[in-house]
Amino acid sequence: MDILFKNITAVTMDSDAPVLRNINLGIEGRKITYIEAANNPLPTAARVIDGTNKVLMPGLYNCHTHAAMTLFRGYANDRALEDWLFNYIFPAEQKLTPKLTYTGTMLAIAEMISSGTIAFTDMYFFMDEVARAAHEAGVLANISNAIIGFDKDNYDFYKDNVYSQTMNALEKYHEKNDGRIKVEASIHGVYTSYAPAWKQVTDFAAKHNLGLHVHLSETKTEHNNCITTYDMTPAQVFYKHGIFDLPCIAAHGVWVTDDDIAILAEKGVHISHNLLSNLKLASGLAPVAKMQKGGVNVALGTDGVAANNSHDLFEEIKMTSLLQKYAADNPTAAPAQSVLEMATINGAKSQGRAHESGMIKKGYDADILMIDFDNPRQTACYEPALNLAYSTSGRDVEMTICRGQVLYEKGEYKTIDIEKLMFDARQAMKVFIAN
Amino acid sequence: MDILFKNITAVTMDSDAPVLRNINLGIEGRKITYIEAANNPLPTAARVIDGTNKVLMPGLYNCHTHAAMTLFRGYANDRALEDWLFNYIFPAEQKLTPKLTYTGTMLAIAEMISSGTIAFTDMYFFMDEVARAAHEAGVLANISNAIIGFDKDNYDFYKDNVYSQTMNALEKYHEKNDGRIKVEASIHGVYTSYAPAWKQVTDFAAKHNLGLHVHLSETKTEHNNCITTYDMTPAQVFYKHGIFDLPCIAAHGVWVTDDDIAILAEKGVHISHNLLSNLKLASGLAPVAKMQKGGVNVALGTDGVAANNSHDLFEEIKMTSLLQKYAADNPTAAPAQSVLEMATINGAKSQGRAHESGMIKKGYDADILMIDFDNPRQTACYEPALNLAYSTSGRDVEMTICRGQVLYEKGEYKTIDIEKLMFDARQAMKVFIAN
Repeated sequence: MDILFKNITAVTMDSDAPVLRNINLGIEGRKITYIEAANNPLPTAARVIDGTNKVLMPGLYNCHTHAAMTLFRGYANDRALEDWLFNYIFPAEQKLTPKLTYTGTMLAIAEMISSGTIAFTDMYFFMDEVARAAHEAGVLANISNAIIGFDKDNYDFYKDNVYSQTMNALEKYHEKNDGRIKVEASIHGVYTSYAPAWKQVTDFAAKHNLGLHVHLSETKTEHNNCITTYDMTPAQVFYKHGIFDLPCIAAHGVWVTDDDIAILAEKGVHISHNLLSNLKLASGLAPVAKMQKGGVNVALGTDGVAANNSHDLFEEIKMTSLLQKYAADNPTAAPAQSVLEMATINGAKSQGRAHESGMIKKGYDADILMIDFDNPRQTACYEPALNLAYSTSGRDVEMTICRGQVLYEKGEYKTIDIEKLMFDARQAMKVFIAN
Repeated sequence: MDILFKNITAVTMDSDAPVLRNINLGIEGRKITYIEAANNPLPTAARVIDGTNKVLMPGLYNCHTHAAMTLFRGYANDRALEDWLFNYIFPAEQKLTPKLTYTGTMLAIAEMISSGTIAFTDMYFFMDEVARAAHEAGVLANISNAIIGFDKDNYDFYKDNVYSQTMNALEKYHEKNDGRIKVEASIHGVYTSYAPAWKQVTDFAAKHNLGLHVHLSETKTEHNNCITTYDMTPAQVFYKHGIFDLPCIAAHGVWVTDDDIAILAEKGVHISHNLLSNLKLASGLAPVAKMQKGGVNVALGTDGVAANNSHDLFEEIKMTSLLQKYAADNPTAAPAQSVLEMATINGAKSQGRAHESGMIKKGYDADILMIDFDNPRQTACYEPALNLAYSTSGRDVEMTICRGQVLYEKGEYKTIDIEKLMFDARQAMKVFIAN
């Protein structure tokens, strides 16, 4: 046994045994191999960790981000959306290089693992650099490079780059290391591309057996313009064009209708709810409760931190519950357990990993966090799940483990050269300050 | 000079100089005594701190809390309000003792100073124990014990305790140490007391020259019941009965009307906006923008962490901006600077301390935080105020200073015996687990 947590509490996300108190939990190689009551004889292990006042939970899934945009954290914020995008973000993105994308992605991953995220679903440029960073850091990642194309010329401009990068990433990273990194295909959104592009992307995805990642009904303008153009909602358009016949994660879904929800449920489309981004950009509040009631799997995401401005998923967990209580006018809505599930097992489902990750259970991957409850911020504690949902922040993550490998522990990054990364990040900023 | 920050950036809340870059800032005794450009010769100082990639800002004000309720963090949460209050919280509060209140308050203060709060406005029982904890920890506190009394018998039951505790606290702590602790009078709310009680409390406050602390229009039920009973809103009732003729901070104000806002502005009543508590208890969203536009000073508070469940004011800062953007359907609403002001200088105003605290300015008290920007969570940074509002959490607080005294630094509590406190807190929990 490689690591043994002695006499610890686990909040498992396993509905058969949601909270395990006073257990010993062992990891061997990639897997959780041992869970027994703490009064059993201790098995031998290379490392034994005292679990007093610590809590284990599954690692978090960030199901929609543009990781490299960490380079644009707080870039020209508090501006109107169009001003911000067209006058600041898009020009800055023109300056991105593969190396800058790698640095920005690694910066995001450092932030993620230091606050408990072990998996992310990314949509951005230079996806082989995104894959390289995820591969080196040892996290799980579903990555894609989105097709944009309003007409033939515009589409042709993008597609060569996108397909060649995707092919490159497929060859080098896809399903290597037992599927640690999965390459996906992506349509940026119904408002940034046209039907022939959708056909080519879905054909491409089907041919290579890839999932899809799209933006869906993020803003009211996008949603309503689509109805004007197509006489259908974005979800109806994608449904009609077969996009949802493939495994798909759709980001946002802020403005989806009841009919849209029925479509998403029928086709098993996963939704990434990106609450803080939606609030900050004044996009609106997604009908999470309705989607869940309608049978849609809802996971959580941070979106890019140019918009959010943090990758700390514990913020999304807490605020998702609070905004659902507010919206429902009911303090019993979106209880702790349900939002913790959104950030863990629901995320694993959306990445096609729920058979091996997202729960603390014997035989599952050791994708787990050890949370420190031995501090004033976590005291008192009567039900650990309540503290995890409402009192925990990334700060309390003492240890982040992905597939049995310790990625982060007590402020130390085990797979990232943090000093070099911070140096590179400061150099990178200079490129955009000059913008 | 006691402490010199060398070559640092300060986000000051001083409108004459909102951001100072590349300065040296010195503290002597209680005061900020030196601010000059970093290229000046370095003055001598007992301690010199390198400010590279650090940012100074004023310490935070938590303007409405029930600190000792830290003992009830996560206690029976996710329940309907009445069930939670009557079946869990009120019975648990019956078991409170002076010693438990001291422990709970100190636990709250430890959490506060480790996340950047240097001042709090408290309303709870055993206020001399609250004062003792604040005094020992070295923070600023305005404290009160609320009068409750629905009729004569009920009022008489409370008032003796409340007045004797208040007199005791007045004698031992009020305006001692240059006003570090200020005792206030308090009416719990319009729905939990009656007119004769209000008269006695305001007379008492006027006689002793005390401010007032009240709850106001927290829930729709409370607001509407008041209209049914008095044919006036809570603000109108308090206005009519002279409560607002004294300096007053009113917590919540979720349901205040336009007329109420005019009253609050006319009488200079300060509002503590307690967003996360209001969302979590499904109380509603206070009209912050309207109040500010109407000339009301709005500060921030966490409320008790039985409801919230955290004292990290950086959560309130970020989410206050995001919810105002959402409510206004406008991403330029409640910009970074405005929410940082709410948490600092507006808080100082509400506590009657704005002449000496709440800004970084020569001659002001050294009530300041040093925030670590040398980590992935704060990178990139283009405008420090944007990162402080949207990317900072209590985790990034490296140093908390109140009146020149270092209270917290890099995980170390300088004025609190944290091991003893954690031991006492765990003992305290047992009292309530048995509930």
